[in-house]
Amino acid sequence: MDVSKRVAAMQFSPIRRFNTYAFEAEAEGKKVYRLNIGQPDVETPECFMDAIRGFDKKVIAYAESGGVTDLVDAIIDYNKQYNMEFAREDILITNGGSEALTMIFTALLNPGEEAVIAEPFYTNYNTFCNQVNGTLVPITTRAEDGYAWANREMIERAITPKTKAICCISPGNPTGRVLTLDEMKLIGEIAREHDLWIISDEVYREFAYDGRDVTSFGMLEDIADRVVIVDSVSKRFSACGARVGCVMSKNRELMSGILKLAQGRLCCPTLEQVGAAALYRLDKAYYQEAKAEYEGRRNAAYEELIQIPGVICQKPGGAFYLTCKLPVEDAEDFLMFLLKEFDDKGETVMFAPAAGFYATPGLGKNEMRIAYVLNQESMRRGAELIRLGIEAYKNR
Amino acid sequence: MDVSKRVAAMQFSPIRRFNTYAFEAEAEGKKVYRLNIGQPDVETPECFMDAIRGFDKKVIAYAESGGVTDLVDAIIDYNKQYNMEFAREDILITNGGSEALTMIFTALLNPGEEAVIAEPFYTNYNTFCNQVNGTLVPITTRAEDGYAWANREMIERAITPKTKAICCISPGNPTGRVLTLDEMKLIGEIAREHDLWIISDEVYREFAYDGRDVTSFGMLEDIADRVVIVDSVSKRFSACGARVGCVMSKNRELMSGILKLAQGRLCCPTLEQVGAAALYRLDKAYYQEAKAEYEGRRNAAYEELIQIPGVICQKPGGAFYLTCKLPVEDAEDFLMFLLKEFDDKGETVMFAPAAGFYATPGLGKNEMRIAYVLNQESMRRGAELIRLGIEAYKNR
Repeated sequence: MDVSKRVAAMQFSPIRRFNTYAFEAEAEGKKVYRLNIGQPDVETPECFMDAIRGFDKKVIAYAESGGVTDLVDAIIDYNKQYNMEFAREDILITNGGSEALTMIFTALLNPGEEAVIAEPFYTNYNTFCNQVNGTLVPITTRAEDGYAWANREMIERAITPKTKAICCISPGNPTGRVLTLDEMKLIGEIAREHDLWIISDEVYREFAYDGRDVTSFGMLEDIADRVVIVDSVSKRFSACGARVGCVMSKNRELMSGILKLAQGRLCCPTLEQVGAAALYRLDKAYYQEAKAEYEGRRNAAYEELIQIPGVICQKPGGAFYLTCKLPVEDAEDFLMFLLKEFDDKGETVMFAPAAGFYATPGLGKNEMRIAYVLNQESMRRGAELIRLGIEAYKNR
Repeated sequence: MDVSKRVAAMQFSPIRRFNTYAFEAEAEGKKVYRLNIGQPDVETPECFMDAIRGFDKKVIAYAESGGVTDLVDAIIDYNKQYNMEFAREDILITNGGSEALTMIFTALLNPGEEAVIAEPFYTNYNTFCNQVNGTLVPITTRAEDGYAWANREMIERAITPKTKAICCISPGNPTGRVLTLDEMKLIGEIAREHDLWIISDEVYREFAYDGRDVTSFGMLEDIADRVVIVDSVSKRFSACGARVGCVMSKNRELMSGILKLAQGRLCCPTLEQVGAAALYRLDKAYYQEAKAEYEGRRNAAYEELIQIPGVICQKPGGAFYLTCKLPVEDAEDFLMFLLKEFDDKGETVMFAPAAGFYATPGLGKNEMRIAYVLNQESMRRGAELIRLGIEAYKNR
């Protein structure tokens, strides 16, 4: 009467598991700048709650398994602004990007089959993939190179006869790396040569800074049959708790497999889909504003951090994360010091140790990820606290 | 570049796949009594939308992975009325009973391991189990016996060295069979002797008719460490589209495994949990009223159906389903006749062919499931249309 090997082997979230110590620090009266989790403080656009408050049916009934048609249509229109044309049957609504990814791995990988992914990567990919006994094979990247990975040799080194897909998160979590359209074309070429699927996680799509273009694997028509895109309202519209995402693909066989999974769990919540349709219909100006806000925060965090002696980091191009090497041996030990022993004027700071984002054991031990989800002033203060913390940590 | 074997082998929902023909019949101007799907017409209690409309935070943020504390506490209180005591760490909120079951199978079954279940059973169990390469082994029951299955010999015949769990749906979907507490004790004994988990789906808990007691595996303290209960607001509170369910177990190792899966998908929607907390806090009078309503509908449907010559059926004791043998060879062919060729005064009827609820190939071909989710008058008319349909079908 034991549990399955897959859950026994899974880890608790490395992003969330230090929360207990943060709560303890707060209970002692410290203020903790929480840079560990991608929960923005930006307000959710009011149209979301307005649409939900206006829902007037007397029975909260099952929705269509593939999603509420009005939301699907709103997503079709949203994609048109980037000259991408999707049909209704190319889109299926999910419980956040998380369920989208779980369904994709379930629909693609037989037990023992592999997907390659650049490490460090968003740690929950392990759960999505291990749930169905698949394996993630890492393409190892380095802070010194800005975590670049769109390189034929690096990618092909990770491909084996068991490889089924290349996972791409761009703009990247946790590195902030943004793929250019040329890099996407290269990845597409490699996928075609090795007959692989491309799983493209584009939940940070608009958050590409310094004048970078918005890029998407959906723009490459010649590989459309092997591309599956994951999207979500969580980050783009600051609506993480809505849990609305979607799968988009022009491969009919894949979408048919995913529809079977969707029918199995019946549907996504009706109300949240009504709210999400309003979000996807927001004017383009909203994206510009949100992007400007995050770009400012990134600048603030980066400018402060890069001045700390020994920090190794390239300016991240997108998303709202920054991963860097710290001048400490063990970032986890340093984090515990920050939460348990350190304070400056009653304040301390929290980040996510990056080791949890690597699949290769031992890597990332001296790296951290921060999310620039707080306002500029808080980001500067958070970075300052990391600097002061390092000084205190070294002088223990 | 193919899809996984597991989704290739999965079926589309046998409950939903005839919808196209129903829509076509409606487009031709026919009225279709839809008895095929468990979507009640009973209004969702207003407290659900009221609680959601009152939500006033500016950011729709991630909730706790295990669920919003207020909802967990409401579920604890709800269980107390049946003298069942759960702690906060015994309960984890899920996206409907569907995600609860998916997580349980993921946390319990290694690829190739088995769970036994009485057939006919709620067909989506196939999806939940096959998703993680587990196998459902059926305990075959018969309409003539009222689909009884709590019998040592029948259960033990299905147990093999690979069996990990016994699945119990009581009150049952699609049969309406209700387990007595003595039957639950017997199943508990068998589980202990064979060292098995008990997965108990109790989403219809209150819908036990003819003076039957509400029963739960949670009432058996001596097997508490091997019991995991699935609950949901869908049926009890007529809130199918809310997609709020939960897993309940006092087995810490299992709950810890499920929490890892929950952290992987981050959380359930915040708003729906706020609404669900209000539902679980409804006065007990609500359950009495809802039960009386469904009991009346069951009586109406049963009384009409049992008069049809050749129909074999015992009066179902609970839930809101009735499965029976029809005097036709192929219920699916008969359903197509009803939708495409038959009408009485412009009206026809739709049911779910029961073959899809059996795991054993060939069984259930002449059986149907109806859900008594419409008012009494509609249920009587629906049953009458089945009777008239059978006459017309035989006289083709």
